[in-house]
Amino acid sequence: MSKPRSKTTAEARKDKVEKALKTLGQNVYEELDNGRFPSVTFASRSVRNIVYDKKLQQFILGSSSVRRSAGNIKHIRPFTQLLWLAFFSRKLVAEKRTSTLRDVYYSAQAFNVEFMDQAESDELITDLEVLLESAREEFNVFPEERSAIFGNLTVEYTVRGYEGKRLDLSSHPDGMMIGPALTTAEFRDTDAEMVLAIEKGGLFTRFIEEKVHEKYKAILVNTAGQPPRSTRYLLRRLHQELKLPIGILCDADPWGAHIAMVIKSGSAAAAHLRDLTTPSGVWLGVWASDIVKYKLPSDPLTEIDIKRLYELKADPRYKDKMWHDELDTFLKIKKKSEQEAFSRYGLSYIVDTYLPEKLQLLKSY
Amino acid sequence: MSKPRSKTTAEARKDKVEKALKTLGQNVYEELDNGRFPSVTFASRSVRNIVYDKKLQQFILGSSSVRRSAGNIKHIRPFTQLLWLAFFSRKLVAEKRTSTLRDVYYSAQAFNVEFMDQAESDELITDLEVLLESAREEFNVFPEERSAIFGNLTVEYTVRGYEGKRLDLSSHPDGMMIGPALTTAEFRDTDAEMVLAIEKGGLFTRFIEEKVHEKYKAILVNTAGQPPRSTRYLLRRLHQELKLPIGILCDADPWGAHIAMVIKSGSAAAAHLRDLTTPSGVWLGVWASDIVKYKLPSDPLTEIDIKRLYELKADPRYKDKMWHDELDTFLKIKKKSEQEAFSRYGLSYIVDTYLPEKLQLLKSY
Repeated sequence: MSKPRSKTTAEARKDKVEKALKTLGQNVYEELDNGRFPSVTFASRSVRNIVYDKKLQQFILGSSSVRRSAGNIKHIRPFTQLLWLAFFSRKLVAEKRTSTLRDVYYSAQAFNVEFMDQAESDELITDLEVLLESAREEFNVFPEERSAIFGNLTVEYTVRGYEGKRLDLSSHPDGMMIGPALTTAEFRDTDAEMVLAIEKGGLFTRFIEEKVHEKYKAILVNTAGQPPRSTRYLLRRLHQELKLPIGILCDADPWGAHIAMVIKSGSAAAAHLRDLTTPSGVWLGVWASDIVKYKLPSDPLTEIDIKRLYELKADPRYKDKMWHDELDTFLKIKKKSEQEAFSRYGLSYIVDTYLPEKLQLLKSY
Repeated sequence: MSKPRSKTTAEARKDKVEKALKTLGQNVYEELDNGRFPSVTFASRSVRNIVYDKKLQQFILGSSSVRRSAGNIKHIRPFTQLLWLAFFSRKLVAEKRTSTLRDVYYSAQAFNVEFMDQAESDELITDLEVLLESAREEFNVFPEERSAIFGNLTVEYTVRGYEGKRLDLSSHPDGMMIGPALTTAEFRDTDAEMVLAIEKGGLFTRFIEEKVHEKYKAILVNTAGQPPRSTRYLLRRLHQELKLPIGILCDADPWGAHIAMVIKSGSAAAAHLRDLTTPSGVWLGVWASDIVKYKLPSDPLTEIDIKRLYELKADPRYKDKMWHDELDTFLKIKKKSEQEAFSRYGLSYIVDTYLPEKLQLLKSY
C-alpha cells in the first residue's frame, strides 16, 4: 500500500495551527492599531457547557463562550499568559522543537511571564487548545507518558533532522515509543489488516512473541493503561488513513472498559477537541461475560469498582445495550479479571483460542 | 568498534541459568533416587543478613542460609512452588518466551500450583533468584515498566524470530523500548563515547532534538523514574562491554539523587544479585548546589523530602563526602528543583551550557 499525496498530514496540521496562531496575533495587532483593547473569545469549558453529541459519539462544547480583554483589569493576567503561550507555541512549531507541560511552565520564567504553578499553565494551555481548535500536541506540547507500537508498518518521519527517513515498525521487537516523531510521521507502507490496542505491556510483548502481527496481520499498540492523547490520535489516524478496524483489549474491570470507551468516544476533558476519537473502535474484551464464559481466575470487585460501575451506567457514552449488559454482568457476578488471567490455560491460549474468537467481531465491522 | 567473540553475552547468560536449573533438578532427582527427602538451601534474605560491601559498593547477603525440605510439612508448599517455578522458568528459557510477574502468578494455575496471591509468587521468584544466583530477567521473567534508549549503537538481537537481525538505535527519534529483546541483544557497532541516563522522558526527547547524541557522542537512556532492573543491567553492560562512562541526570531532590545512587550501588532488595550496579557511574546533577549556582526555580522541601534526606544521610551507600555535602545542602537551602527548571533560561540552555560544564566530571573518569 502506498499513499502518494500532495500534502502530508503532518504538513497540513502544521499549516492549520500556524495559520490559527498568525490570525490570533494579527487580530491583536489590528485592535491595538485601531486604538482598541485587544481581546479573545472562545468556547467556555465550564461543566454546564459540556454536552454529549450523539452523532459524533463524543462530548463537545456548547454555545457558551468566554471573552478575555486587555481592557478588563481582572483579565490582563490570563490574557497576557495566553498570548505568551501562543507566541511560545509558534516558536516551537517554527523551530520543530517539542516541549512538555512541565517545560512550558518553566519556560515562561525565561520571559518573565508568571504562572503561580503548573496547574495554572496547564489550564491556559487548554484555553489555547480551545482558541486554536487544535490539540496541544499540534503545537508541539507533549505529555510525559508514552506508549508503544509494533507491526508491519513503514513510517516516514517529518521531525527535524529526520525528514524523509523511513522505519519499519517491526524492526524492534520490544516496540517503538509513541512520541512526537511517531505521532507526526506519515504512514507509507503496510500489509496490516487490523490494529489491536492492548492495555498492558506484558500482553503486548506476548503478542509480539507469538507473532500476532503476522498470524493476524495486526499492528499492535501498547496503550500503557489509559492511553495518552497522542496515542489516541495515532489510533484514529491508523483507522482513518489506512482504513483499518481498531480492536481494543483491556482488563475485565470498569477501568479497562473505560480505556476502550475513551479510545472510542473520548473524554469530557477533551470535549473541545475533535481528532482523538475512533467511534468505530471495537471493545473486544476482556468482557464481564468472558469471566464467566472462560472460567477466568478473578478477584472480587471493590467498593470503588462498584461505585465506578454505577457512574459508567449513568454515562451517555455507555448507552448501547451491549455495554450496558456488560456493566450489569460485572455488578451481578461481582468479579473482575485481568488480561493475564488467560495464562491459567497456558501462555499461548489467549493468542490461539481467545483472540480468533474475538476477532470475528472485527469482521462484521 | 566491532566486538567479535566466541560466545555472546546472551548465550553465556542463557547457558549459566540453564545449567543452574538443570543442577537444581538433578539434585532433587538424586535425593529421591537415594530415598531421601529432596531439599534446597540458599542464602537468607532477612534484613539481618543484608550487609553493605564496601569493595563491591553494594548490599550483599551475609552467611546465613535457609533450607526448604520436602520432609518438613511446613516446607512442602514453598518447596513445591519453588520447584514449579524452576520448571516453568526452564520452559520459558528453552522456548525463548518471556513472562511478567503477573503472568507467572496466573500460569501457575494452569499447572494446579497454588499461590495465595501475586505477592506470594513474587516472593518465590525472588527465592529462585537467590537459589540460581541469577536475576529473574535471566530466566525471562520481566516487569511491566519499560524505559527507552536512543543513540548511535547498532545491536544484534538474540530473541526468537529475530536472531542475527540488527538495528541502529538512532533510527527512531522517540526512542526504543528497553524490553526483553534489547536487554539480551549484543552490542555490535558504536561511535559513542559516553552514556547519559536521564530520569524523565521530556528531557530525553529534548536531548534527542538538540542532537546530544551527535554533539557529545552520547547514548541516551530514559530511566523513566527509578529504572527497572533490566535498564540498570543494560547500563552496566554498556559500561562494561563498551567501556563507556555512565553519567546520570536526575531531578534535584532526594528521590532524584537516589535514582543515581541505585544505578551506581543497587538496592537492598537486590542484595542477592550482582550484575545490576555500575559503581563508576557519575551523578552529574541536578545537585542541591546547582539550585544555588544556577539560580534555578525551586519548590520548598516537604516533610517527606526532609525525612528521606535524613534516611539517605544514614545510608552506607552515601558515605562519600561529595554525596554527604549535597544532602546537607538540600537540608540547608530547604529547596528542590527539577531538570525542566533549566528551561527558565531557554529550551537549549541545559544542552548548550549546563551539560558541557557537567561533562567535565566524566572526563576525569
